[in-house]
Amino acid sequence: MNENVKLPAELRIGLVGGGQLGKMLIEASRPWNVKYTVLENDLHCPASSVADKVIEGSLKDAEAIRKLAQECDVLTFEIEHINSDVLLEIEESGKTVIPSARALKIIQDKGIQKLFYRKHGIPTADFVICDSPSDLAKAVQPFAGEKVVIKQRTGGYDGKGVDVVSKNDIASGKFQSPGPCVVEHFHANIAEYSVIVAVDRKGNVVTYPLIEMYFNPQSNLVEFLFSPAGTTADLDSDYRAVAMCAVQALQSPGLFAVELFVTQNAEVLVNEIAPRPHNSGHHTIEGNYTSQFEQLNRILLGLPLGNTEMVQPAAMINLVGGEGQSGKCKLKFTDQLLSERGVYVHLYNKAEIRPHRKMGHITVMADSLQALLEKTGKVREWAVFEQD
Amino acid sequence: MNENVKLPAELRIGLVGGGQLGKMLIEASRPWNVKYTVLENDLHCPASSVADKVIEGSLKDAEAIRKLAQECDVLTFEIEHINSDVLLEIEESGKTVIPSARALKIIQDKGIQKLFYRKHGIPTADFVICDSPSDLAKAVQPFAGEKVVIKQRTGGYDGKGVDVVSKNDIASGKFQSPGPCVVEHFHANIAEYSVIVAVDRKGNVVTYPLIEMYFNPQSNLVEFLFSPAGTTADLDSDYRAVAMCAVQALQSPGLFAVELFVTQNAEVLVNEIAPRPHNSGHHTIEGNYTSQFEQLNRILLGLPLGNTEMVQPAAMINLVGGEGQSGKCKLKFTDQLLSERGVYVHLYNKAEIRPHRKMGHITVMADSLQALLEKTGKVREWAVFEQD
Repeated sequence: MNENVKLPAELRIGLVGGGQLGKMLIEASRPWNVKYTVLENDLHCPASSVADKVIEGSLKDAEAIRKLAQECDVLTFEIEHINSDVLLEIEESGKTVIPSARALKIIQDKGIQKLFYRKHGIPTADFVICDSPSDLAKAVQPFAGEKVVIKQRTGGYDGKGVDVVSKNDIASGKFQSPGPCVVEHFHANIAEYSVIVAVDRKGNVVTYPLIEMYFNPQSNLVEFLFSPAGTTADLDSDYRAVAMCAVQALQSPGLFAVELFVTQNAEVLVNEIAPRPHNSGHHTIEGNYTSQFEQLNRILLGLPLGNTEMVQPAAMINLVGGEGQSGKCKLKFTDQLLSERGVYVHLYNKAEIRPHRKMGHITVMADSLQALLEKTGKVREWAVFEQD
Repeated sequence: MNENVKLPAELRIGLVGGGQLGKMLIEASRPWNVKYTVLENDLHCPASSVADKVIEGSLKDAEAIRKLAQECDVLTFEIEHINSDVLLEIEESGKTVIPSARALKIIQDKGIQKLFYRKHGIPTADFVICDSPSDLAKAVQPFAGEKVVIKQRTGGYDGKGVDVVSKNDIASGKFQSPGPCVVEHFHANIAEYSVIVAVDRKGNVVTYPLIEMYFNPQSNLVEFLFSPAGTTADLDSDYRAVAMCAVQALQSPGLFAVELFVTQNAEVLVNEIAPRPHNSGHHTIEGNYTSQFEQLNRILLGLPLGNTEMVQPAAMINLVGGEGQSGKCKLKFTDQLLSERGVYVHLYNKAEIRPHRKMGHITVMADSLQALLEKTGKVREWAVFEQD
C-alpha cells in the first residue's frame, strides 16, 4: 500500500463483522468517502445502513473472508470471534490486515493472552490455565480468598464467559467447569478503567485520556463511564503508560482498548485488551478531538494519527434492553434527552430489543467534570426504552 | 404526522437535491437511522454515498418529485432551484413539506424576496425591480454612487447571477441586462455576517451565534468564516434578532441561513435568506452542540430543537478547485491538515475538480478566538488540491 495516502483515498476497506462498532466506524469515514465492504451473517446488521456493500456470510467462514479480502485493499475486524487462521493466510499473501492476525490470535485465547502478559512483564492478576474440567477443583486451591474468577479461554463476549465463583461451589460441584479456562485471583472492590491506544502503521503510538467505568452487576456491561477519570494527573499518566506498554508488546498497528483493574492496594493490572474500537471509547465521538472510530480509519488508510485530547469532559451511558423487553421499542424520554445541551443519542439499528441487549448509547458533555457527573446522573434516569 | 415522535423514528424523509448539503444532512441522521430517499439527476451525486435510495430525475420534474413524495413521510430540499409549484400541490394534498412551499416561492424569486422584506419592515438594501432589459439604464439612475448591484430574479447560485456594475457600463451598453432583475444600492466596504435560524413545527425558534464571513473577490464564494464573530455580545444579540425576525416573517418551519450586510454606518441589512443548511453553517458540525444538519433532522422528525451554543470557537475554510484544475484530484497537504489538533476535513464525494468548484471544507476549532484565527491562517495555506 502507498505509504503516503492523500485524501480522497481510493481504498476499499473490508470489515469482518457488521455490528454497532462497524456502523460507527463507517459513519466516521463518511466525510472522507472511504468505501467499506462488510462481512456479516445478517444482511440487516447494524452496519448495513451505512456500508457500501454487505457480503452475507459467517465470520468463521474462510471462503467468505477470502472473498471479502479479494475485493478490498485493507482488512480489519470489529469482533474477535472470527476465523483468524484465514486472516493469517491473507496477511501472508501480502494483503494488509489491521490489527495483525498474530495479535488477534494472542487476544482470541484468554489463556495465551495471559501468558503473553506474563512473558512481557505486563502486570495482570495471578492465574493458572486449566484445560481439563476434572482439574478445576485442584487448580483453584492455591488461590487466596474465598472466590476466584473463571474465564473461558475462547468465545466469551460482553461479560459472558466470565464468572466470579466461590471455591466451595467448585469443590462441591455446584459450579461446573465451562471447559478450557483461565483461573484468576479475584480482587475485591477494584476500580475499573480503560485506555484507548492507537498504533499507526509506522509504529507511532498515542493514548487517550483515562476512562473510569462503572459496570452493571447483573449484566456485567458498562453502565456508564466518563473521561477524564477522577484520578490525579500522575495516575492518568501512569495508567496510560501501562496500557501503552501492553499494546506495544503486541507489535501491531490498530486501535486497542486496554481494560485496567486498580486494586485496593493501588496495584494496576491489565485485565484484557480488545483489538478494535470498544464500548469504553464511544464518548470519544463527541468528547475528543479525534474519535476512536476516526482514529482507526486514519490507521487503516495510512494517515497520521489524530490528537487524542478531550474537547470537553464526556460521559457515556449504554442504552440496553430492560428486563422482559422484546420486539420493537422506542426511547421513553426522547424529548428530555434531546432538549439537554450536550446530550447525543446513538442508536444501533437493531430491529428487536432483548434484555441487556446493547441498543445504543448516549454521550453527555459538560464544561467541568463535576457538572458532567451531575448531568449524567440525571440523564441515566432517561436511558430507558418502552415497547412500541 | 404524529406530534410526539420518539427515537427510533420510523419516518422516511424525501430530499430534493443530492449535493453536499444533502450528503451532510444524511450523515447527521445516521446515528438515528433515519431513512432518506434523494431525488437527483445524477445517481453518483455527493449524497448517493450515504442515502438509502436515490431516484434519478430532474429537480424541476413534477412527476419525479411526486414520486419522491409518495414514498416519503416528510419532504425537504437542499437547493432552491426546484419545482415549487409541485411542492405546493404536494403540501395541499396533506403531506408535510419543510420549509413550506410558500416560503420557498418567496425566496426563489429575488424580486419577491425583496418586496417581502419591504412589506415586513425587514431592513434591506434599497432596490427596484427591473424586468425589462431596455429599462435597466433608466432604473439605475436614481441610485447614489457609481455602482449598483444587479441580481437576476431567479436562478442565481453561489455568487452566480449577482454582479456589481458601474452605472456607466450600463448606460454605455457594456453591461447587458441578464433579464428580469433586482437593482440594488451598492454598499461599499460592508462586513458580511450570517445567522443560522431554526424553526420547529410548533413555531419555536432558535438562532446560532453570529458568523463572520470573508469572501473570495474572484469567485464570490466564502473563503473562510468563523464564529462567534469578532463583535461585541450586544451586536451579536442585535444581529441575531434581525435574522430571527426575517425568518419568522416567513411563517414556516425549517432551517434558514440569513446573510447580513453591515454597512460603514453600522446599519444592518438582510441580504438574503437561504431556506436550507448553508455553507456558512458548516463549522457547526464540530463547533456547536447541535449542528445545522442535526437541527434540520430534528425539525423534519418533529423532535425538540437542539442547543445552538458553541462547544469551542470554530472556523470554516472552503476547499475549492484552483485555477485550471480539472479531473481527479487529491488534497496536497493531507498530513499537515490531519496532524493539527481540532482540524476536520470534509470531502463532498465529487469525482472531478473544476476551478472554484466546492470540493469540500475544513473545520478548525480552538480554545479561544485569537488562537482560532492564528490556526486558521496557517490551515488556509494547506487548503489546496493537486491533480492526481
